[in-house]
Amino acid sequence: MPCGRMEALDMEEARYIGTLDIGGTKILAGIIDPAGRLVARQRIKTQAKRGPEDVIARAASALRELAQVARLPLSALEGVGCSVPGPLERESGVVLFSPNLGWRNVRLAELLEEHLDLPVEIEDDARCAALGEAWKGAARGASNAVYLTISTGIGSGVIINGHIYRGAHGFAGEVGHITLDAAGPPCACGNVGCFEALASGSAIAARARQAIRHGDETMLTQFASDTEQLTAEQVIEAAGSGDAVAVRIIEVVGSFLGVGLAAIASSFDPEIIVLGGGVMNRAELLLKRAQETFQARAVPPLGSLVPVIPAALGDESGLWGAATLLMDERSDQSGR
Amino acid sequence: MPCGRMEALDMEEARYIGTLDIGGTKILAGIIDPAGRLVARQRIKTQAKRGPEDVIARAASALRELAQVARLPLSALEGVGCSVPGPLERESGVVLFSPNLGWRNVRLAELLEEHLDLPVEIEDDARCAALGEAWKGAARGASNAVYLTISTGIGSGVIINGHIYRGAHGFAGEVGHITLDAAGPPCACGNVGCFEALASGSAIAARARQAIRHGDETMLTQFASDTEQLTAEQVIEAAGSGDAVAVRIIEVVGSFLGVGLAAIASSFDPEIIVLGGGVMNRAELLLKRAQETFQARAVPPLGSLVPVIPAALGDESGLWGAATLLMDERSDQSGR
Repeated sequence: MPCGRMEALDMEEARYIGTLDIGGTKILAGIIDPAGRLVARQRIKTQAKRGPEDVIARAASALRELAQVARLPLSALEGVGCSVPGPLERESGVVLFSPNLGWRNVRLAELLEEHLDLPVEIEDDARCAALGEAWKGAARGASNAVYLTISTGIGSGVIINGHIYRGAHGFAGEVGHITLDAAGPPCACGNVGCFEALASGSAIAARARQAIRHGDETMLTQFASDTEQLTAEQVIEAAGSGDAVAVRIIEVVGSFLGVGLAAIASSFDPEIIVLGGGVMNRAELLLKRAQETFQARAVPPLGSLVPVIPAALGDESGLWGAATLLMDERSDQSGR
Repeated sequence: MPCGRMEALDMEEARYIGTLDIGGTKILAGIIDPAGRLVARQRIKTQAKRGPEDVIARAASALRELAQVARLPLSALEGVGCSVPGPLERESGVVLFSPNLGWRNVRLAELLEEHLDLPVEIEDDARCAALGEAWKGAARGASNAVYLTISTGIGSGVIINGHIYRGAHGFAGEVGHITLDAAGPPCACGNVGCFEALASGSAIAARARQAIRHGDETMLTQFASDTEQLTAEQVIEAAGSGDAVAVRIIEVVGSFLGVGLAAIASSFDPEIIVLGGGVMNRAELLLKRAQETFQARAVPPLGSLVPVIPAALGDESGLWGAATLLMDERSDQSGR
């Protein structure tokens, strides 16, 4: 291989990376410089209802604008990594189905490549967040880690030997559907008693609705005229204000979260478990109860060996992680 | 490195491997030739009550005798791989604690090395069985596989990219202690509702005792004058004879086994799950019910993608797997 001065300079320039996190409500775009710093960043609304072509065109524009702000030609970017809610096919760059976005069989990578004329890698949002936390966040330096996102559902990204572990068919880390209670409540997957049905934002909201229907005295009745609109965040807020019903709900759900964490630790024995996702924002009580239950229920000595801590990068975990999809060292596959 | 004819011959000769599987009731010893064939094999009783030094001396003698039978000097062996019930410290070769053998802090590798003057590698029995099935058995050719042993308890060996996955602290694959029923029966680990408390041989025997105490009409009462002596194998036998109480027990336990398999598939997404261990011998009904429940409960599409099949090597899985501990390609660690 030639290795003259020009090539070396070109390589240096080409180490900027574009990064996108396309979520159900917002799109984050960023540019990361060769030293691994986020040198430009912006956030736009997803407006998923406008359809995938429109969303993808605006995501591409957001990146192009950032390049201008950073005074870089687009060609200075080595490529673009993109986080998106799945399931998806990484190799073909197609989002198979994304309930959050209302997408089905969207050729995301190909469309972004057409807009930007750059190579594009896509990956599931929970896996991107895991990669981001492992690179710059709470799991920094860990080669084996599990990132768990607690939002409407429960997703995870499993890092083994510094790489995302995808399994034989790309489904590794579908821990939201581990059964924790064989006689538990129904789950969206068609099963019953799944981790997700017991410890997600949806589970918190469902318990709150149940309490209101049951006539329990709680400030939650004031939060929403239609109890169907109650959110997990409102229940967490009410618990923070000392509402006894809300506190009880968060304690029960936190316990189930801890039981699920124990299952994950027993399976993967990670160096660290990182908790992210919308539900974990300002959810001190939920975290505390989950940690206590985890420590009590994980098979000894894992309860005392594996720290369970909140994500450190806020809503930027995925943005940072998507950038690593362009870095071979981190995005290489274990399994597939 | 020198590479003359003599060295090449030495290397060829040195590719014989000694292998041991020290279990609670029997010790298997074998010699595997450079072509990967088991050229000599014997089985002796463990007689664990005689103490670890005696057991280890007799295991070493068994190997020495096999070498004589195969007309090989001991020095023709590259080393010895040894399967043993753990937990253990692989690097130091110490068995920390083995309830099956009544061992505590036994320097197994060191003692075998003193007897045989050969390098010795030790590993947990479930992990050795996993390696054996992946090399020569039901998971042959799979690079991602989970082997589950169903006996008194439930253990597993997880193979990722062709290597045993040990996790950050050596506890990966402790799936026997995943909670499947947060309000379930107590487990030996101190927890409740663990996979092991619901789907192991002990769980089968416990349900049988409960049925007898309850006064249910069953042939199981004839099997043991003291119901405390009832074994899972007897319940499986009674179910095979059509005993309704035994059939019901096997169906319920088989369902829990399927629920646990679904949790394992959701976590690891392996190419294949292999079931071994004493309880799986002639346990067609148990296997059938576990497979049905797995297919119904695993998160789609894993139920139809991941075959669940019985081990192919009978009681020799561990013997074959222990030999691979001497083969770098297979015994290399993922994680630790």
